[in-house]
Amino acid sequence: MPHPISPLLPHRVFGTSTSGNCHKVRLALDALDLPYRWHEIDVLKGETRTPEFLAMNPNGEVPVLQIDDHTFLPESNAILCYLADGSQLWPGDRLARAQALAWMFFEQYSHEPCIAVARFIRKFLKRDDDPRLPELTRRGHAALAVMEQHLSRQRFFAAGRFSIADIGLFAYTHRADEGGFDLAGYPAVRAWLQRCLQQHGISAMPSP
Amino acid sequence: MPHPISPLLPHRVFGTSTSGNCHKVRLALDALDLPYRWHEIDVLKGETRTPEFLAMNPNGEVPVLQIDDHTFLPESNAILCYLADGSQLWPGDRLARAQALAWMFFEQYSHEPCIAVARFIRKFLKRDDDPRLPELTRRGHAALAVMEQHLSRQRFFAAGRFSIADIGLFAYTHRADEGGFDLAGYPAVRAWLQRCLQQHGISAMPSP
Repeated sequence: MPHPISPLLPHRVFGTSTSGNCHKVRLALDALDLPYRWHEIDVLKGETRTPEFLAMNPNGEVPVLQIDDHTFLPESNAILCYLADGSQLWPGDRLARAQALAWMFFEQYSHEPCIAVARFIRKFLKRDDDPRLPELTRRGHAALAVMEQHLSRQRFFAAGRFSIADIGLFAYTHRADEGGFDLAGYPAVRAWLQRCLQQHGISAMPSP
Repeated sequence: MPHPISPLLPHRVFGTSTSGNCHKVRLALDALDLPYRWHEIDVLKGETRTPEFLAMNPNGEVPVLQIDDHTFLPESNAILCYLADGSQLWPGDRLARAQALAWMFFEQYSHEPCIAVARFIRKFLKRDDDPRLPELTRRGHAALAVMEQHLSRQRFFAAGRFSIADIGLFAYTHRADEGGFDLAGYPAVRAWLQRCLQQHGISAMPSP
């Protein structure tokens, strides 16, 4: 659990290694060659509901990036924006930046709540007969179809190059099979996943 | 339905006036004194599922901001970032900008899917006995409690002043009663709503 630390680098990350939202943060730090210390949090053991954790993030969710002794940044995609600010991973052009953000909001609204939640139900809770799965599966495939349409014409999601929008969508998409999603029908998505894995610092997430 | 337009101002917005996600865009345009033309879209009549609409946003959701003849930006909070870029509504400091984004991702992940969806079920579908409402109500109150804790110590959500993070959270919070949420237990939220309404260009959303 968190102790007061120096405001200097390395960054401290409070996260769960098998969570895609947390893996995004690791990918951005690795891609940017930023040093960090990783504090493993076990969500299933209630470690995001302790008073110490809620003091860092009142919303009780991982990941959290510690900025200094008293400043903690939650929300995976906001952490990506913070880490990548000023780098080649965060487009400098106003429209490209907004398009990257649009894909990151798409990820948190239309993709993660289906594909990541289905994976959580199947792989962490081990409930393959959960009544939520059919609807999550339908909506998850709709999100994948939107990605397939874009990637059939573009190599990456924004600015014509690899950015934090790709990191945000890579995290749960490359483990979509663990949520019961067969990517065989999405050749452009599969080719993009391979392009992502060829980028500096990008690695697969550990399976639960 | 959309026709080719000049890339010059005014912006064109495709939106639903009684949708909080769309009202956010109107608020940002009004707050920034930007001219715009509003194209009303009736979601319940299927107007977001037509080929013309899906050509603008393959994800089939309002709002959409038309940038030029061939460029359409979806996702309400990404549109706010685009419109406010370089203005006083979008913090220039790296950390403050990331904190504003963290609240905007919180809004789309933890707030809107409960408070807006409960409002949609009650006010648009008119199903007060919908079985999803108890869980949406529980999670919506959790989101309001997180906001209350922050606003009991801060006047606005980021950078110590009114920003697009406030616009993003204002939209559905000030109509939370229509989703069955009583704000009586959230005095700091109610005071913040009043502060928002005192800002230039900020107005209440029409009820359905």
